[in-house]
Amino acid sequence: MWIVDYEDTEDIAVGAGILGTGGGGNPYLGKLMVRRCLDEGARIQVLDLGDVYDDATVVSVGGMGAPTVSVEKIQRGEEPLVALRALEQFTGRTADHLVPWEIGGTNSTRPLVQAAHSGLPVIDADAMGRAFPELQMCTFSIYGVPSTPAAISDVRGDVALFPKTSSPKLLEQYARAVTIEMGGSSGFAFPIMTGAELKRTAIPGTLSFARDIGKAVRKARKELSDPVPALLDVSGGEVLFQGKITSVHRQMTKGFATGEIEVVGLDKFIGGTLKIDFQNENLVARRDGEVIASVPDLISIVDGDTAEPVTTEVLRYGLRIAVLGIPAPSLLRTPAALEVVGPRAFNLDIEYRPLAGTYGAEVNRVATSQELL
Amino acid sequence: MWIVDYEDTEDIAVGAGILGTGGGGNPYLGKLMVRRCLDEGARIQVLDLGDVYDDATVVSVGGMGAPTVSVEKIQRGEEPLVALRALEQFTGRTADHLVPWEIGGTNSTRPLVQAAHSGLPVIDADAMGRAFPELQMCTFSIYGVPSTPAAISDVRGDVALFPKTSSPKLLEQYARAVTIEMGGSSGFAFPIMTGAELKRTAIPGTLSFARDIGKAVRKARKELSDPVPALLDVSGGEVLFQGKITSVHRQMTKGFATGEIEVVGLDKFIGGTLKIDFQNENLVARRDGEVIASVPDLISIVDGDTAEPVTTEVLRYGLRIAVLGIPAPSLLRTPAALEVVGPRAFNLDIEYRPLAGTYGAEVNRVATSQELL
Repeated sequence: MWIVDYEDTEDIAVGAGILGTGGGGNPYLGKLMVRRCLDEGARIQVLDLGDVYDDATVVSVGGMGAPTVSVEKIQRGEEPLVALRALEQFTGRTADHLVPWEIGGTNSTRPLVQAAHSGLPVIDADAMGRAFPELQMCTFSIYGVPSTPAAISDVRGDVALFPKTSSPKLLEQYARAVTIEMGGSSGFAFPIMTGAELKRTAIPGTLSFARDIGKAVRKARKELSDPVPALLDVSGGEVLFQGKITSVHRQMTKGFATGEIEVVGLDKFIGGTLKIDFQNENLVARRDGEVIASVPDLISIVDGDTAEPVTTEVLRYGLRIAVLGIPAPSLLRTPAALEVVGPRAFNLDIEYRPLAGTYGAEVNRVATSQELL
Repeated sequence: MWIVDYEDTEDIAVGAGILGTGGGGNPYLGKLMVRRCLDEGARIQVLDLGDVYDDATVVSVGGMGAPTVSVEKIQRGEEPLVALRALEQFTGRTADHLVPWEIGGTNSTRPLVQAAHSGLPVIDADAMGRAFPELQMCTFSIYGVPSTPAAISDVRGDVALFPKTSSPKLLEQYARAVTIEMGGSSGFAFPIMTGAELKRTAIPGTLSFARDIGKAVRKARKELSDPVPALLDVSGGEVLFQGKITSVHRQMTKGFATGEIEVVGLDKFIGGTLKIDFQNENLVARRDGEVIASVPDLISIVDGDTAEPVTTEVLRYGLRIAVLGIPAPSLLRTPAALEVVGPRAFNLDIEYRPLAGTYGAEVNRVATSQELL
C-alpha cells in the first residue's frame, strides 16, 4: 500500500509515457489533474493486488478517444466517475476499488483522479501493462471477464450503457461510435468484476512499475548520468536502435493516428535504417527490412539524451531518438492473448517473436494472479 | 378498439407509404411480418387514445436506420421488443401498451409485430403523423416528454441504453452512431411515458388514418375509379402537381438519402416544372421557382394512375407521378413544433406557409389531447 504524492505524479507521468509506446495520450494533463486533487487535500491510496478480497467489487475506469483530442478538448476530469455511478445504479452493485485499465499514457492517472473524487482506493495493476488502441485488447476480456455491462459518459454528463454485446470487439465499436458523437472523448467504467476475477486476470504492480521507471529516469537526469540504461535496468529490455528520424507519415484513420516513421542509425547503429509502423501505439519495428520487435512487446521511442517519451503525435523530422524494446508481460504472450494483441490482430502478416527478457522482471507479481492461469 | 386483420395489413401498407412522404421505409416487409404473426394465430389489438388510463405505462417502439438498409438487411423483427425489455428492466416499470412513433413507412407496422409477440395492445396514435428523418422530430419530445431513458437493440440481441442525454438531438446522434455499427438498422424503445403524457402529446387516430387512406385507394382501384381523389377525400389536401420525372439526384449523406428531383408538368400542369428536395422524406416543393409546400406539411409522391406511394429510393427518370400536398397535423404546426420540424430545422431558408385544410379533418381526434395544449 502506498499514498500518491507530488513526486509520484511526476514519476508516473514519465513512466506511463514510456509504457504508452507512442499512444495512450500524453500523461501531462492527467498529472496536472492529480496534482490539483492533492492540492485540495485528497488522499489517494494505492493497494496491492494481493490485498483485494475475492468477493470485493472492482471497476476499471479510464478514458476513451484519440490522444490528439485529449490535448485539444480538456476533460472535466470526472467523466469516468459519472460512468461508474451509472454502472453501479444499473447493476445494483457498489464499487469497493478502482483499477486502471491501461497503464500506458493518460489512463494511468485518470483512475487516480476518480479515486480522489470518490475516496475509493486504486489497485496497483492494469489490463494491458502498456497502451493499446482498442478496448477489447485487455487481459480482463482475454481471460474471460465479461466486458459488459459497460458505461461511458461525457463532459455534459450524458451516459450510454451497454448491458450486453455479443463480443468485446462490438463493445469497442459501439462505445467508440458514441465517443465520437460525444466530441471525441469519453470516460468509461467497465468491466465490473469480483476481486477474484481481477486477481486472475490483471497484470499486477503496473502502477508502481510506471512510477519506478519514471523515478529511475528522473534520478539519472538529476545525477547527469545516462537515463536510458537506468530505465532499462528497471523495465527490462534493450536499446533496439538509435538514430535520427528522417521521415514521418501520419494520418487520422477512423479516429486512430496511423502511419510510419523512418530512422537512420547513429552511434553504434550507423549505416542501418529502422522503420516503425504505428496505430496510436508503435506496432512493429523493422531494421533494414527485418522485423526485430512487434506487438505485444513494447516498442518505445524516447529522446536519445533525456529518455523523455516521444508520443506518436509529436514525432517529427530530425528528432534524435532511442528506440527501446521492452518484453511484454507474460499475460500478453499466451496463445489466447496473441489472438487479440499479436501482430495478426493488427493486420500485420508476421510471426510474433518474443523479445528476450521479462517485463520489469514481472514486477511485484502476485502469486494468485499467476497460479490460476 | 379494433383487431388487426389481413385486409388491414394491406391497407396500412399503402396508407403508411403515402404518409411516409418518400421516407420511413417501404412498409412491404413490415406487412409480411405482421401477416406471419396473424398466420401464427396472434391477436393484435388496437386501442383508442381515449381508452388509455392516465397512470398506464406506454412505450413507443419502432426501428431506426436508413430505409435502403431495411430492404437489404432483413430484420429478425423482434429487435424493438428486446429494446423494450431492456428499458423495462432498467426503469423497473412494465409497459401496459405500445404506441407507434412514426406512422409513415415501416414504423407503422413494426409496433404491430411487437404487439403480436408481447400480447400488449397498440395505441391508435403516433408522434409524427407522417415520417421524419431524425428521432427528435416527434411530438413526444416537442411537448416535453423526456426522450431518455431510451434503448436500442440489434439482430444479435446487443443492447445500448441511454439513461440520460442533454438533448433529444444528442440521443439521435448517439443512437444513430450505434445503429450504424449495428449494421445500419436497430429496433428502439423510447420514450417510456404515462398515459397522461401520451394523451397530451400524441397525434391521435393515425393508425386508423393510415388504414383508411389505404382502404380508399384500394377500393377505388378495384372499382376502376381514380384513386387520387378518393385518397384526398380521406387525407385532406390537394394535388400539387402532375407530370413526369425528368431528373433525379440522390446521394447518401451521413446515413440519409438526400437529393432532389425535377418533374415537368402534364395534363393541367403542362408547361410548368416542379422541384422537390428530400432528406429521406420530401422536404420542399417549388413550382417554377416558387415554394408551394414545405415541411411539416406532407409532400407525397404517388403513381399517377394507381396512387401507389413512390418512395425516395425508387424515384427514377420517366415515372409519371402525382405530387400530393397534405396539411400537417395541427400539433406539428405550433411555433414549438416548427422549431423542430419546420423548414429551418432542415436548413431551408424559407418561411413555412401552411397548406389549406386539415390533416384528415384531424381524424378521430381525442379531446384530451387537444384541450391540454
